[in-house]
Amino acid sequence: MNDASVPAQPGFRLARGVVRMLAGLGHAPLCEFVPAPGQRVDVISVAPSGEIWIVECKSCRADFVADRKWQGYLDWCDRFFWATDCDFPAQLLPEGDGLMVADAYGAEIIRPAPCARLAAARRARILRDIARTAACRLIRLSDPEAFTGPLPD
Amino acid sequence: MNDASVPAQPGFRLARGVVRMLAGLGHAPLCEFVPAPGQRVDVISVAPSGEIWIVECKSCRADFVADRKWQGYLDWCDRFFWATDCDFPAQLLPEGDGLMVADAYGAEIIRPAPCARLAAARRARILRDIARTAACRLIRLSDPEAFTGPLPD
Repeated sequence: MNDASVPAQPGFRLARGVVRMLAGLGHAPLCEFVPAPGQRVDVISVAPSGEIWIVECKSCRADFVADRKWQGYLDWCDRFFWATDCDFPAQLLPEGDGLMVADAYGAEIIRPAPCARLAAARRARILRDIARTAACRLIRLSDPEAFTGPLPD
Repeated sequence: MNDASVPAQPGFRLARGVVRMLAGLGHAPLCEFVPAPGQRVDVISVAPSGEIWIVECKSCRADFVADRKWQGYLDWCDRFFWATDCDFPAQLLPEGDGLMVADAYGAEIIRPAPCARLAAARRARILRDIARTAACRLIRLSDPEAFTGPLPD
């Protein structure tokens, strides 16, 4: 299959499939989100109920082994999942987390994630930041000059 | 001036200028937001602090007189503003609300709006809905098939 809309990078391909699956569940997923300086999650997603999921996409063993930041992401979500392709050695991953298998076109939840419910203040902060990030990205697409106009300071 | 990127509809022209000004203030504005069934605000905006502003854009007297919904919008924001062009009869507008004068390229706050602070649960709900709306619009732009794929239910 030769689909120009599919990202070349393996991690982005997995993320695209994860986003499609989450959208199908009624979630609102956002890619490449920065919850705190130095952190960047592959997919963060807001369920209709307001529950927040984070999905980290790992395309190969080296990608997982090199990741020293994922445990910090647990502080920003109610449920945490890994997403891998079907060839990934799943036994490497912590058994207590959720697991999805994905490709560029979709994903499936193989193991549900336990819920570690965020405190209200933390949830309000992360929802604020997701709202601001997504709204600003939309403006950059619809009116690229909005952030370079006469009031840039 | 003949700028193809400027919307034809007067209300949308004002909204574009308002969005540019708010972006310059560090806000994250979102246009055409539905806070509840039957309601649709022109611009809702999340400040860096999480404060929520709503801006209703009125291009002419008839536009304002026909609006029977705006008082319902006060329930969804900390501060409420009108935005008009410089020819609008500003004496028509309630004196207690904020006022901006706008065109398609920018806006200016003429009268600040008082703060009627949202309750925490209401704020969390509106932030959730802004986050979900903006994230879903981004997906529709970046991967239009995400919402029409194999999991549409």
